[in-house]
Amino acid sequence: MMNKEEFIQLLQDKKYKTAQNILSEMNDMDTAAFLEELDAKECALAFRLISKEKAADVFSCMNSKMQTFLVDMFSETELKELLDDLYMDDTVDMLEDLPANLVTRILKNLDSTKRSTINKLLKYPEDSAGSIMTTEYVTLKKTMTVKQAMNHIKEIGIHKETIYTCYVTENKRLMGIVTAKSLMTSDDNENITNLMNTNIISVHTHTDQEQVAHLFRKYDLIAMPVLDSDGCLVGIVTFDDAMDVMVDETNEDISRMAAMEPNEKTYFETTVWQQAKHRILWLLVLMFSATITGSIITRYENAFSAVPLLVSFIPMLMDTGGNCGSQSSTLIIRGLALGEIHFKEIFKVMFKEFRISLIVGSILAAANGLRIFIQYQNFNIAIVVALSLMVVVIVAKLIGCILPLFANKFGVDPAIMASPLITTIVDTCSILVYFNIAVHVFNIVV
Amino acid sequence: MMNKEEFIQLLQDKKYKTAQNILSEMNDMDTAAFLEELDAKECALAFRLISKEKAADVFSCMNSKMQTFLVDMFSETELKELLDDLYMDDTVDMLEDLPANLVTRILKNLDSTKRSTINKLLKYPEDSAGSIMTTEYVTLKKTMTVKQAMNHIKEIGIHKETIYTCYVTENKRLMGIVTAKSLMTSDDNENITNLMNTNIISVHTHTDQEQVAHLFRKYDLIAMPVLDSDGCLVGIVTFDDAMDVMVDETNEDISRMAAMEPNEKTYFETTVWQQAKHRILWLLVLMFSATITGSIITRYENAFSAVPLLVSFIPMLMDTGGNCGSQSSTLIIRGLALGEIHFKEIFKVMFKEFRISLIVGSILAAANGLRIFIQYQNFNIAIVVALSLMVVVIVAKLIGCILPLFANKFGVDPAIMASPLITTIVDTCSILVYFNIAVHVFNIVV
Repeated sequence: MMNKEEFIQLLQDKKYKTAQNILSEMNDMDTAAFLEELDAKECALAFRLISKEKAADVFSCMNSKMQTFLVDMFSETELKELLDDLYMDDTVDMLEDLPANLVTRILKNLDSTKRSTINKLLKYPEDSAGSIMTTEYVTLKKTMTVKQAMNHIKEIGIHKETIYTCYVTENKRLMGIVTAKSLMTSDDNENITNLMNTNIISVHTHTDQEQVAHLFRKYDLIAMPVLDSDGCLVGIVTFDDAMDVMVDETNEDISRMAAMEPNEKTYFETTVWQQAKHRILWLLVLMFSATITGSIITRYENAFSAVPLLVSFIPMLMDTGGNCGSQSSTLIIRGLALGEIHFKEIFKVMFKEFRISLIVGSILAAANGLRIFIQYQNFNIAIVVALSLMVVVIVAKLIGCILPLFANKFGVDPAIMASPLITTIVDTCSILVYFNIAVHVFNIVV
Repeated sequence: MMNKEEFIQLLQDKKYKTAQNILSEMNDMDTAAFLEELDAKECALAFRLISKEKAADVFSCMNSKMQTFLVDMFSETELKELLDDLYMDDTVDMLEDLPANLVTRILKNLDSTKRSTINKLLKYPEDSAGSIMTTEYVTLKKTMTVKQAMNHIKEIGIHKETIYTCYVTENKRLMGIVTAKSLMTSDDNENITNLMNTNIISVHTHTDQEQVAHLFRKYDLIAMPVLDSDGCLVGIVTFDDAMDVMVDETNEDISRMAAMEPNEKTYFETTVWQQAKHRILWLLVLMFSATITGSIITRYENAFSAVPLLVSFIPMLMDTGGNCGSQSSTLIIRGLALGEIHFKEIFKVMFKEFRISLIVGSILAAANGLRIFIQYQNFNIAIVVALSLMVVVIVAKLIGCILPLFANKFGVDPAIMASPLITTIVDTCSILVYFNIAVHVFNIVV
């Protein structure tokens, strides 16, 4: 790809034609990434060199900071031209991130049909199918032949974001789906009625976008129709948006699983203060929860005064408990997110985790018990630690599988029931189990 | 959808025609899921009722257990018929999971061209572009017109898995790409040379599949050409396979991040023994690593004999350190996986994490120091805990960001540098920091 410095030199030397050629050879995504690296003034200059057909596509690939800057700088004519070429869903995406004064300016520059569509799209709840759908798609009539359909697409299709799935409608109601593949491979005189598939996978405008992404993956779709509450076709979601949803939702889960508030921006796009803000709340909550474990320990002061060695196994028990719990909770959270596990299977899950913890617990207890016996020649300590490990593993795995399932049942994101919270809860249990066993084995009065 | 019991009743009553109609109305994925729920005998019977055109598609949606069962049961004729209709990449997917005797039987039933293609595909390294590509795609010649191209597609396209991106080749070399969209919206007499895009995003057969998925997401592709070492077109990867790769790779990362060996099967598909096997290794490693922390504690026996209250803050410090470390490591691991963070940015990352830890650390230290001072009226303890917290947070965040970056640099999956390992390492540091500060503040001789 072109070197940034060389390109700036071209601009300074006013070799606009050469710069223009270089830009026209890059694909849209790379052009956007390249322009984002330039300074404000150069970027504005370079953007104006991009051919009119390409400009809107490059614009929609840019980050919101750059979009804001460009929109702010555009003349009314330039803005109108850009908006004419921009896809409806890209316009909505842009508007969601722009400052209010620019939003007003853009809405003013749209023709009234477009404006009302966009206003409607902006009103769908965040994370709903309606908020990610596009309103540009190809509709056909049942009575058309393949030839007529192809001509219809030729006439209007060039402006549509995807033409690979066409929608057969009757009074706005979706009757069937015809793929571009069947149009392209069927006889010219074949009737659309005979080609259309009436077994339609569709969603409603208020369907959760995560659910939409699931369906895409399950059925390998390129696009999916979105219906309103009356069953009328109002838009389609395309596979690229579904892919983005998948990644966003996973990012969200992974952030929550590491005790952070989710964040749509990338690591470097987020400022230090924002990062701190996303992290501090859970750290505070977990820190104060952990003091509970601490105060339980102080209740057993007699125990570790009598047998000081007891203290040295606290980190190992806590960590092992935490790890066992987070293994289970992670699998359950992921299974819930991918729709592979459901609340109704809770007893099946618990029974499975119980059996797993018996195996895992026995191995860990045996390994550690043996090590302690060999190292310290102290049978009682070995028994206390081994027994505690066994119980801690079972408890941790059960807590790890139950909490995410209940969170899901009660409409809370199960991802917050991941390692950090599970660890804190399991810690308390571990300490209680451990000292109770120790007190009995060593006959200590507390 | 049809009730399972009613359907079995239909089969028992030999109402095959009705059963057949029911199956023909379901889509492929749902039919496969439905059949998987039936008993072996009923499933075999039902599968034979599915129309020939649909059978291969339904088959490729089934899980490997069911596929094995059906292949085992098929007569040679049935097997031949199925293999004729099965896409090349689905056949390879199936072969990878079948027992050896069935693989031999299937290879025997393939014609020699198909067999040699499949043998070649089976040889690509796991997780490479070659292993997920399909060898069925549409090629065009530069000299064709749109009309000729459309006729060509009509002739051969129906058997191709995707026809929405056509590849213009010359002596097997890829010269350009034409989308079905431009074919459908261009004049019949337009030349392919004028329509084709020569700015091609392609990968090599040995490119890592994760990289392939990145490119799909970055450029919103439907299909991507795969070239061999000579630059000849040998296959394409389609978006649905790229989506599956994204989910699989994320599952892998999430498993590793929770100290488990990754597993391609779903939670319920994995047996208790397999689950235990995937979990035990890391648990053992981490358990024994945690004993290091324990033995460090014993070195400070004098300290907690002198000030027993010190012990009660161990869990809080360990947990907070672990949480801070896993927040940072999680963000870095995810950033690396999505290609948003690179090793060369290590100092930028470290500086950012350092500043974040100053903010977060101050808040945590102040909050907890104050609480301890109010609760115990002990200024020294409050200072020891607050100071330790500050240091622990900084150390944890730095370890949390450095380790994944180095793992990535040295070709180790950064996901194993997640919470569990970071926690164990940070624990040791926390205890050392804490007791060193305590020993100095309280003037304890150890």
